[in-house]
Amino acid sequence: MTAFGYLGPEATFTEAALIRLLDERGITDAERVPMHNAEAALAGLVRGELDGAVVPIENSLEGGVPATLDALTRNGKLQIVAETLVQVTFVLAVRPGTQLSDIRSFATHPHGEAQTRTWISEHLGNAHFLPASSTAAAARDLAAGDVEYQAAICPALAAERYGLEVLAAGIGDRADAITRFVLVRTPADLPAPTGADKTTIVAVLSSDRAGALLELLEQFAARGVNMSRIESRPTGDGLGLYQFSIDLQGHIAEARMAEALMGVHRVARRMQFLGSYPAAAGDTVIVDPRTTDASFAEARAWLDTVLSTSRP
Amino acid sequence: MTAFGYLGPEATFTEAALIRLLDERGITDAERVPMHNAEAALAGLVRGELDGAVVPIENSLEGGVPATLDALTRNGKLQIVAETLVQVTFVLAVRPGTQLSDIRSFATHPHGEAQTRTWISEHLGNAHFLPASSTAAAARDLAAGDVEYQAAICPALAAERYGLEVLAAGIGDRADAITRFVLVRTPADLPAPTGADKTTIVAVLSSDRAGALLELLEQFAARGVNMSRIESRPTGDGLGLYQFSIDLQGHIAEARMAEALMGVHRVARRMQFLGSYPAAAGDTVIVDPRTTDASFAEARAWLDTVLSTSRP
Amino acid sequence: MTAFGYLGPEATFTEAALIRLLDERGITDAERVPMHNAEAALAGLVRGELDGAVVPIENSLEGGVPATLDALTRNGKLQIVAETLVQVTFVLAVRPGTQLSDIRSFATHPHGEAQTRTWISEHLGNAHFLPASSTAAAARDLAAGDVEYQAAICPALAAERYGLEVLAAGIGDRADAITRFVLVRTPADLPAPTGADKTTIVAVLSSDRAGALLELLEQFAARGVNMSRIESRPTGDGLGLYQFSIDLQGHIAEARMAEALMGVHRVARRMQFLGSYPAAAGDTVIVDPRTTDASFAEARAWLDTVLSTSRP
Amino acid sequence: MTAFGYLGPEATFTEAALIRLLDERGITDAERVPMHNAEAALAGLVRGELDGAVVPIENSLEGGVPATLDALTRNGKLQIVAETLVQVTFVLAVRPGTQLSDIRSFATHPHGEAQTRTWISEHLGNAHFLPASSTAAAARDLAAGDVEYQAAICPALAAERYGLEVLAAGIGDRADAITRFVLVRTPADLPAPTGADKTTIVAVLSSDRAGALLELLEQFAARGVNMSRIESRPTGDGLGLYQFSIDLQGHIAEARMAEALMGVHRVARRMQFLGSYPAAAGDTVIVDPRTTDASFAEARAWLDTVLSTSRP
Repeated sequence: MTAFGYLGPEATFTEAALIRLLDERGITDAERVPMHNAEAALAGLVRGELDGAVVPIENSLEGGVPATLDALTRNGKLQIVAETLVQVTFVLAVRPGTQLSDIRSFATHPHGEAQTRTWISEHLGNAHFLPASSTAAAARDLAAGDVEYQAAICPALAAERYGLEVLAAGIGDRADAITRFVLVRTPADLPAPTGADKTTIVAVLSSDRAGALLELLEQFAARGVNMSRIESRPTGDGLGLYQFSIDLQGHIAEARMAEALMGVHRVARRMQFLGSYPAAAGDTVIVDPRTTDASFAEARAWLDTVLSTSRP
Repeated sequence: MTAFGYLGPEATFTEAALIRLLDERGITDAERVPMHNAEAALAGLVRGELDGAVVPIENSLEGGVPATLDALTRNGKLQIVAETLVQVTFVLAVRPGTQLSDIRSFATHPHGEAQTRTWISEHLGNAHFLPASSTAAAARDLAAGDVEYQAAICPALAAERYGLEVLAAGIGDRADAITRFVLVRTPADLPAPTGADKTTIVAVLSSDRAGALLELLEQFAARGVNMSRIESRPTGDGLGLYQFSIDLQGHIAEARMAEALMGVHRVARRMQFLGSYPAAAGDTVIVDPRTTDASFAEARAWLDTVLSTSRP
Repeated sequence: MTAFGYLGPEATFTEAALIRLLDERGITDAERVPMHNAEAALAGLVRGELDGAVVPIENSLEGGVPATLDALTRNGKLQIVAETLVQVTFVLAVRPGTQLSDIRSFATHPHGEAQTRTWISEHLGNAHFLPASSTAAAARDLAAGDVEYQAAICPALAAERYGLEVLAAGIGDRADAITRFVLVRTPADLPAPTGADKTTIVAVLSSDRAGALLELLEQFAARGVNMSRIESRPTGDGLGLYQFSIDLQGHIAEARMAEALMGVHRVARRMQFLGSYPAAAGDTVIVDPRTTDASFAEARAWLDTVLSTSRP
Repeated sequence: MTAFGYLGPEATFTEAALIRLLDERGITDAERVPMHNAEAALAGLVRGELDGAVVPIENSLEGGVPATLDALTRNGKLQIVAETLVQVTFVLAVRPGTQLSDIRSFATHPHGEAQTRTWISEHLGNAHFLPASSTAAAARDLAAGDVEYQAAICPALAAERYGLEVLAAGIGDRADAITRFVLVRTPADLPAPTGADKTTIVAVLSSDRAGALLELLEQFAARGVNMSRIESRPTGDGLGLYQFSIDLQGHIAEARMAEALMGVHRVARRMQFLGSYPAAAGDTVIVDPRTTDASFAEARAWLDTVLSTSRP
């Protein structure tokens, strides 16, 4: 049996992401282990206690994103092998039998409250908000009974898990809130290229040199590699260094990506490869005919001919 | 009397940032108004009910950052006029007389708990965590009495505000956690250039065109304008558009920045100027001699001579 | 009456170019003055003795091209106001009545001989070549009589001018040999934009800085200005400086070109504007919608609004 | 015995260049074969009748430069293996015993006359110019006697070769006129890298795509390869293609150059490698530490580790 960790607590969006990722892989017998934080999940993976770990990496309402990237970067021994996008949508969950009009108080994580304020003010105008340590904890405690509130605002998964009844679904203010989760494993699990892949790296540049970022991007442009995400943060080391977290379109086993990453390896102060994996959106990467593997192979063959023709 | 809004609740890091920003301006009589969210604060500003609003814009533990940028961008009528960096550090606050050994439970926002877990496990190993809707609410309710817990983990400001005693300070796991807050006002309040300024913009580019970001950065490079922060996010409109949030070194009233922004205005699908303001770090921007205002003025004078010499 | 100088001698391709350029302007009464070299022609123009001067600037078989650019650059007070492309094609000219079989010797400039060697070996296999100081001098002296040769290889214009008969036309080896000539006048004569213009500049860059040329080209790329010709030469001053002679698509009175040239003025060690004038090919310059005059005007209007909104 | 061709006639600057190039190689027994033009010299080389050929490639007063490049490019089977810079300086040569005051006429190639006009007008004011097919032919015929002129303006080599006396040396108008000559051989003769090398290529780009040249230069910039010369010419094929002739600093056997050339091979419509050879100036190429062979090897080793770690 295998075990996969995830950023707990149980029954939050991260577990939902893990369930989906396991499902996509046809893994039905895995144990799902909630972890306190990303760092603990990754540490368990390095120690071999886990076969994988799921953590949020972008746009998470429940936090954890910078921590995830930091943990992955600091750890340095793991790689992203898959991603999935989860729509962050809340339900109003109650114990079976409770009516909307019975609700005088509700519990949820403060972020859950912030995200559903419009719906609450319309439908539960006078209800009192009680903070919980997580949206799922609010549901779990409600199901266990002996709490001061009659409803929990939580993910559908939590309602289902704890046997609660859903009085209203999709009650978040933003229908489009989506969080991106990644499945992290060891470098031995690098997925094969699919033609619709993403590569994630972290690069540290000196901010003292004008045009340092431009120089970095040239490494991608010269090989026709496109970016789909970039974020910069000061490294906070007082040396004027900036850390760039970047998603690229393509796979490290493709010639254009391999050469671009070697270029970044040369020009950046530090560079870390965080993985090549199928893009959740599934869109095939459109590759300029001049940067296909065939085009790189042709150029290499040409060079070999030039060099081999000369007398030793 | 003037009134300044801030992302509430009261006595959190955002109010601490506002207090410092008012102090730096020598404003002593302003009313400080806690607002539910960034959007509400900005709306109050637009309606003229507020003279300014302070919101977190980067690395906030209490959330709100993407919301702030979204609100500023959507609103479209306001500008950042100042920024300040606040060290996010927590204290353990109790009612006067309480000893460390008396603490069986403590309350704080779930993020506050996550940030102080190491200290807690060492010093309050067996204490029970009770979630609060904010770190300051935990302190306020403790001071008001009649709660199940004996300590609050909160900002120093909250302890002071509610007359609590600080048993330990600086108990966060990361000594370097810093949040960046901005003071937002109307375009009429554009600050004069100081030589150590920052400019914030949001630009929307088509991700379909290879090299779209490179093209954007060329607008900066061609005028010697450096970036200090960049973040991309899909716009989520299904059109393959990406939104870049960017901080630049310099002020829109400087020639190189003005020309670069006009360039971005031309090449981007949409571009929004979110303000030019003194950088909190206070470092004078180092300007290449070939991109000073004098150098731009000389080039303009040269052009005018060429054009004016020709016969009408 | 007006006077136009040209790189002599009389009846060569340069006079043919001048005749065409005057014709295009509807100037019928101009005196055409042959000059010893480009420098002398330009000097006469500066002294006010000439109203214009025609010199070869690219691909000339009779030499003079680097000299022309050098003379224009050194002079610094003149501008190109028009260009024309002349097909360099030779005729075999004889005194009326001479037959092909009568030709035992022929005269021409050594370059003329080099260019017609194929035809000569086929049709005048045994004829002897006598060098002349110019193709036209060969024709003139033949017409004057008293020479040792029976034919001249010269431009059609020279045959016509000196009353010679053309035995064969188009006898050059390369049917595609084209020389580009320019009409030089004073800055007061800057032509109005036509939408199908060219701009010629000379820029001096330090070759010590890696990427100096890339930086120069960025000035064009950032404003959507395309190049149609570039040539580099060491300046020979021992300082590692390189001189770039560049043709651009567009006119200095267009916003994108004006801003690009101001940019070059800032970043280059030295920059010289050698003129904006209608392209001989007549092709309308295709302008990216994001770099039209209207687009620049809109961006300027936007900037003015931002700056004017702020309180003085 | 070996045979080296050169652009004739005998005793001109090209033969002087060949003599120096043979001398540098310690080749003392080579036959030097004057050829009609560059194309003939290269054809002889391809047929195996010659062991090498010397042709002018830049700034030649006697013409031949575009022809040389065209011939090399069209031929496609040869490479430049060395270059040398020759100062183009003329002498006034006479038969032994002739005095300056005896000179009533002088002969030279028309370009030689153009280059020495200042000296002539000062020292031989009334002397008559007689054109010759080459500067060396003027000297040879003078030595042979039976000519109408008393002096030849020619290279020092021609005076020496034909036993003439030099009345004055260095009589050219421009002391700095320098022509660059190259020694062409077969690809089997590719010289080993010296650390102070040059690489010459010809690339054909579509001029229809804005930024095509910028894209080409990115291939060099991304690998830290500097250019020392660039020239563009329309290809004249009516397809809007431009041909760029480029000299780069470095050798194809160096990693950064090899990868850059493979990049150009991918993005250009056509690309031709014309040789890697020691630069005449002898200056060691300064290589950015991030683009040394060691840096490329390190990047490759890193990539290999990433790829080899994954499970097959």
